Amino acid sequence: MSETFQANGIITLTTDFGLDDAYVAIMKGVILRIAPQARIIDYTHGITPGNIIEAAYLLRSGYRYFPRGTTHVVVVDPGVGSRRRAMALQTPDATFVGPDNGIFSLVIEDAQHIWGCPPQMVELTETRFWLPQISATFHGRDIFAPVGAHLASGTPLAALGRPLSDPVLAKRTTPLPLDGQTLQGRIIHVDRFGNCITNITTEHLDSYGIGPRLVIEIIDQQIQGLYRTYSDGPSGIPIALIGSSGHLEIAVPNGNAAQYLGVDIGDKFRVRRAAEQRQPAG
Amino acid sequence: MSETFQANGIITLTTDFGLDDAYVAIMKGVILRIAPQARIIDYTHGITPGNIIEAAYLLRSGYRYFPRGTTHVVVVDPGVGSRRRAMALQTPDATFVGPDNGIFSLVIEDAQHIWGCPPQMVELTETRFWLPQISATFHGRDIFAPVGAHLASGTPLAALGRPLSDPVLAKRTTPLPLDGQTLQGRIIHVDRFGNCITNITTEHLDSYGIGPRLVIEIIDQQIQGLYRTYSDGPSGIPIALIGSSGHLEIAVPNGNAAQYLGVDIGDKFRVRRAAEQRQPAG
Amino acid sequence: MSETFQANGIITLTTDFGLDDAYVAIMKGVILRIAPQARIIDYTHGITPGNIIEAAYLLRSGYRYFPRGTTHVVVVDPGVGSRRRAMALQTPDATFVGPDNGIFSLVIEDAQHIWGCPPQMVELTETRFWLPQISATFHGRDIFAPVGAHLASGTPLAALGRPLSDPVLAKRTTPLPLDGQTLQGRIIHVDRFGNCITNITTEHLDSYGIGPRLVIEIIDQQIQGLYRTYSDGPSGIPIALIGSSGHLEIAVPNGNAAQYLGVDIGDKFRVRRAAEQRQPAG
Repeated sequence: MSETFQANGIITLTTDFGLDDAYVAIMKGVILRIAPQARIIDYTHGITPGNIIEAAYLLRSGYRYFPRGTTHVVVVDPGVGSRRRAMALQTPDATFVGPDNGIFSLVIEDAQHIWGCPPQMVELTETRFWLPQISATFHGRDIFAPVGAHLASGTPLAALGRPLSDPVLAKRTTPLPLDGQTLQGRIIHVDRFGNCITNITTEHLDSYGIGPRLVIEIIDQQIQGLYRTYSDGPSGIPIALIGSSGHLEIAVPNGNAAQYLGVDIGDKFRVRRAAEQRQPAG
Repeated sequence: MSETFQANGIITLTTDFGLDDAYVAIMKGVILRIAPQARIIDYTHGITPGNIIEAAYLLRSGYRYFPRGTTHVVVVDPGVGSRRRAMALQTPDATFVGPDNGIFSLVIEDAQHIWGCPPQMVELTETRFWLPQISATFHGRDIFAPVGAHLASGTPLAALGRPLSDPVLAKRTTPLPLDGQTLQGRIIHVDRFGNCITNITTEHLDSYGIGPRLVIEIIDQQIQGLYRTYSDGPSGIPIALIGSSGHLEIAVPNGNAAQYLGVDIGDKFRVRRAAEQRQPAG
Repeated sequence: MSETFQANGIITLTTDFGLDDAYVAIMKGVILRIAPQARIIDYTHGITPGNIIEAAYLLRSGYRYFPRGTTHVVVVDPGVGSRRRAMALQTPDATFVGPDNGIFSLVIEDAQHIWGCPPQMVELTETRFWLPQISATFHGRDIFAPVGAHLASGTPLAALGRPLSDPVLAKRTTPLPLDGQTLQGRIIHVDRFGNCITNITTEHLDSYGIGPRLVIEIIDQQIQGLYRTYSDGPSGIPIALIGSSGHLEIAVPNGNAAQYLGVDIGDKFRVRRAAEQRQPAG
């Protein structure tokens, strides 16, 4: 990468803290003490507590829409206080700070894909960029918020610690080929409308030769074909479509797919080409 | 209107997306790419999914408190991907962007009332103000956020598309006269405290000659008179009052009126003058 | 206090309004009209409706992390419209605005502790700093937001009203000594993870001679000793630890302590030295 990251002063926050506690406010206070001009944007604080795959997905689905030079602080940290490492990673576009537990799996994959090489990564070891006292339970406040504030203020990544080349990568973020014509996918997020977003993207379907005439088997349901939009499908029945993030999604028009099917994050399903599907002649 | 709208750089966001997904963050990223200096304020993301009347009410209850020149982006859009139009409208005070499905009914009514003429309205057709690729399911990201950002940066309304004179207007936002002394109202919002806000305003009561000695009939309850404040009423019993937005409201002091009555948005009730009520002599 | 407060333009908002209504947005609009350059930070809007102790705790746990000169507007106001006073208080570090109902108990205690004297306090009586019309039900909009905006713009505290020296102080925010070796504490907050934060701090434990080998009795459970972090404790069993705010906390690793124990805010428990605890020799 010949280009280098230039901080733009925007910091986004992604956590599983919810908004009913003071935890998020405290992180903002810490950031503003270090970087009074930072612009803080709540990305989401509604990650299912401790759910690393969901965090990885939601982060990937949106970070690319932010201006170049944005710093993303991500704290979904079930292992806080254990030996898990703290890390930061950087591409010419964006910087990420958080625990090294797999939450960055998909942005690392993206970086490899977009820039042709892994992102620059460090383990956070330089304690002078942290708060003076480090609690055992709230590294969002003590480590990640202050480091994010320093990055957004222009501190170079390399100053924060020693190079890291073996980040923890989450399993289950990509589908599993079962045989020549079937992929096993998983639900990686259920949105507010009950739509079930899966770990299968259009790229996965394409590379596996599964076209729009696909068949999904989930619980006791068989879902055929792809609709273009929620309002195109029959009301009250599960349909499949490609959602706004390019992922295969199961929805129930005017209903709640997760409730209808009784499924949740982590649940498996199968997708294959329809038996009668043929290549168009010519 | 001889005055013209001058954008002040503030953009509010109103959606039914909730805060647990990345949808709202993505809209903010899109806005900041186009208008890096925009000040983004979350109005609410807690609209009941797809509920157009509630969106219309909540928007009307608050937009007037924002500084002159504010841009309001509103995405409650059950028909996304169908043929419903996208629109923007403007008064000398404020600009609004969103789907043409009735969510702007009450601000259009307000504009007529305040300025004596309808607001300036356009159908969004100029795709150069949109993202390059338009998904079938997320026009908040692809159309409304970028158009809002352009408006907040000073793009004139007329540049965004062709004039629109027949906006969709929501029914049920105003009460229905039943006879010479009774109005049929509806609950249009239930707030966090269980207070049931109705579509009947002090103006409606005045113009229908219903004074403070009113009688409400809802489900199997009869509620008499108006209290001044929640803490004035008897604990645990339904009372009526005029809420902070000037709408008739049913509350249960130290309780939850919606749960107590078993009612929700859309439910009907009747209000009339108390039988014994007389005009003051003279 | 020889130092004086210098407003930095940052305003935080703490309420029990939730985020699904327009109430919070309206307060932001009011603030921006008066102080267009103010930076508004949501502290939390998830206080349990009307819960003054929880508000007092959450406020204390975080305000010190904000930059010097921050203005905190706090509206947890079950007595709105009654005779309760409106107040503001100030230290060289921070200013607070809200109802005089006990929500500031712990910051007043802090101020006494840190500065050696009570904070400067006024009853809000100068109506020229309020909105022109005062509703009976929404003083957050009509009084506290505008006063906060004026304070953040540099208006001196003394201009807002007459001195106040007898603020309402909440009971139950500090533990009750039962005998020479036992304290009665209360749960003052349950966080998103079900962790039960108590009103007992490390200072209380120290001053009462209760070391880390403590015993907690709550409902039918006995909890022994202190763990350093959530991930240190045995999975699925209640443990105690000192949380990130310095308060004694009851947690269930990989579980939800409030659900496990069936407890909520306000519930009592006892903590004492373990019977076999001895001072280390030498």
